[in-house]
Amino acid sequence: MDNKTLKLKNHFPQDTANFLILNSINITYFTGFSGAIALLIPQDGENILYVSGTNFEQAKHEVKNAKIEKVNRGENLFQKISQTVKVSVKSKIAIDSINIENWKVLAKAVGDENSLVVAGNVIKDFRAVKTPDEIELIRRACKIADVGISVAYEVVEPGISEQEVIAEVEYAMRKQGSSGTAFGTIVTSGANCAFPHGTCRSRTIMDGDLVIIDLGATVDYYRSDVTRTIVAGKISGKQQEIYGTVKATQDLAIKAMRAGVQAAEVDTIARTIIGRTGFRDCFVHNLGHGVGLEIHEAPTLSPDSKDVLKVGNIVTVEPGIYIVGFGGIRIEDTVLVTKEGIEKLTNAPYTLQSG
Amino acid sequence: MDNKTLKLKNHFPQDTANFLILNSINITYFTGFSGAIALLIPQDGENILYVSGTNFEQAKHEVKNAKIEKVNRGENLFQKISQTVKVSVKSKIAIDSINIENWKVLAKAVGDENSLVVAGNVIKDFRAVKTPDEIELIRRACKIADVGISVAYEVVEPGISEQEVIAEVEYAMRKQGSSGTAFGTIVTSGANCAFPHGTCRSRTIMDGDLVIIDLGATVDYYRSDVTRTIVAGKISGKQQEIYGTVKATQDLAIKAMRAGVQAAEVDTIARTIIGRTGFRDCFVHNLGHGVGLEIHEAPTLSPDSKDVLKVGNIVTVEPGIYIVGFGGIRIEDTVLVTKEGIEKLTNAPYTLQSG
Repeated sequence: MDNKTLKLKNHFPQDTANFLILNSINITYFTGFSGAIALLIPQDGENILYVSGTNFEQAKHEVKNAKIEKVNRGENLFQKISQTVKVSVKSKIAIDSINIENWKVLAKAVGDENSLVVAGNVIKDFRAVKTPDEIELIRRACKIADVGISVAYEVVEPGISEQEVIAEVEYAMRKQGSSGTAFGTIVTSGANCAFPHGTCRSRTIMDGDLVIIDLGATVDYYRSDVTRTIVAGKISGKQQEIYGTVKATQDLAIKAMRAGVQAAEVDTIARTIIGRTGFRDCFVHNLGHGVGLEIHEAPTLSPDSKDVLKVGNIVTVEPGIYIVGFGGIRIEDTVLVTKEGIEKLTNAPYTLQSG
Repeated sequence: MDNKTLKLKNHFPQDTANFLILNSINITYFTGFSGAIALLIPQDGENILYVSGTNFEQAKHEVKNAKIEKVNRGENLFQKISQTVKVSVKSKIAIDSINIENWKVLAKAVGDENSLVVAGNVIKDFRAVKTPDEIELIRRACKIADVGISVAYEVVEPGISEQEVIAEVEYAMRKQGSSGTAFGTIVTSGANCAFPHGTCRSRTIMDGDLVIIDLGATVDYYRSDVTRTIVAGKISGKQQEIYGTVKATQDLAIKAMRAGVQAAEVDTIARTIIGRTGFRDCFVHNLGHGVGLEIHEAPTLSPDSKDVLKVGNIVTVEPGIYIVGFGGIRIEDTVLVTKEGIEKLTNAPYTLQSG
């Protein structure tokens, strides 16, 4: 049996005889397959992967750790499952995530709502600690993202549009083997940099503009995330000064990171440094987030996080200062928590200067 | 008040005084904004858009049809909402979609589960009928997808990898103004074409290979979807014959489409034609799906669809024949249901021949 399934079986919630995985990312986590409807992991016996006719042959071809069950047209998945497993309040089904309508259908199919329990956090916690295989894939995705950033440094100059910068960095990442972007590539410039997620408006970049480049690559479903801020043309004193603050903040936050440290504490260190320079209200988002099969996953570096850093966590560290009218500066890297401390997985250069 | 909000207010479920939109795509549908947490549309009064600190300034800047409410750290969204609205079993909250955990929190916050009703289908049905503005955006996304296909015809030849083909078509679509792909671009070749969603494996394309190119562009969040099958090099008689069947199937299915026709009937026409040639079991997916803010939305062209085609529906028509060991052939266009019949929005050429 594969290690991930085995680990889950050892962490089934009490009185649970089956774990039903409905979240498609979680299904990919356990099977390496994308395109199934559900995965049943029973305490005893073989995993069952439920697949529609569209992807049935592919699943048979690719999935090694589950029996493949075709869900035919008109068949109700939850009735099918309830016929497969014996369920009671003493041998419940644990579920990773489910909407209220399906919850009601499943409860009716198994006869009793009390035979069901939602236990998505078990899998969320597993996914937060990466295996060596996962680390290797994310490491590769990080190396590709670094290439994307290096292309951004080359092409950002007055006269190019945000959209053209995105075209070049995404093309370079594809050529390096990225299977799609890790998220919608963000290139914002000028005053729009004041919006952390400012969507691309095809604006033409002007001399002296701040340009935020936030991108990631994907390798076998695993993602990376890196941000650099570049000035097109002449750099102002204020830009340089704020850049220095953001960089020093990232350095000190990363220095404080190691297994056993509260994630909230790392965020607080960053927020305190930025606060001392008078920009506390300008750091409008969390310091960081886990990265893996999803671009935002556990653990979270935020003031209200309950997470404690563990060896194998992979998180972003991304302080930023945003000032309406002026723009914004963000620096972000993806880092791995190791036994010895941390290792940066993204290694793009730090400079405001393009070219 | 904007037309979409007004239309929803006229279609509130009975006894409903507020509609709570939690699905992020539905929020974008009503506000044009991506990056909010929730949208409350009350029967009386102004819309309220709930946004975290990260996107608060951007929402204030961009959203015209709602009051922007910041959700601070530690604040519970559902408690906040329950304090804003008066809720009872006679003035319920309708919700578009919600998971079981949030359902329980919200029910507790408003005091009674019977004061809540899930009514996602109302919005699903709205979104299936596109407004003239939406049609224009999808039309633009379709034109960009046609450019992607034309580049695929140019570059597909023995010796190029699937990954390189994707790099070229995506680059071309970005340069034409696509704000990201409509979905993960699919390029499968050789025997892998037998898997409709076969993920890119960086395979090098060989002489005589079938190559399926399935791609789409995005313009202001609206998507397009088109597929062509190309042969790299010499075309075999069997490839040509099956291609002819798939093309004839698409032609006759499209000919049968007009407002008032059952979506299932159109699927049946396609399935019958393919069945007559002996390939019935090789058409392993639905004939088509709606396209809009999501790549798969209502209506669905499938044997078990309950949908009836309406003026303003935009759907794909994508018959395919998949044979394990041989490969697969799919042809797909995005079409608009008009008062007069249908209009094809994608217009890439139909030929197996690359170059």
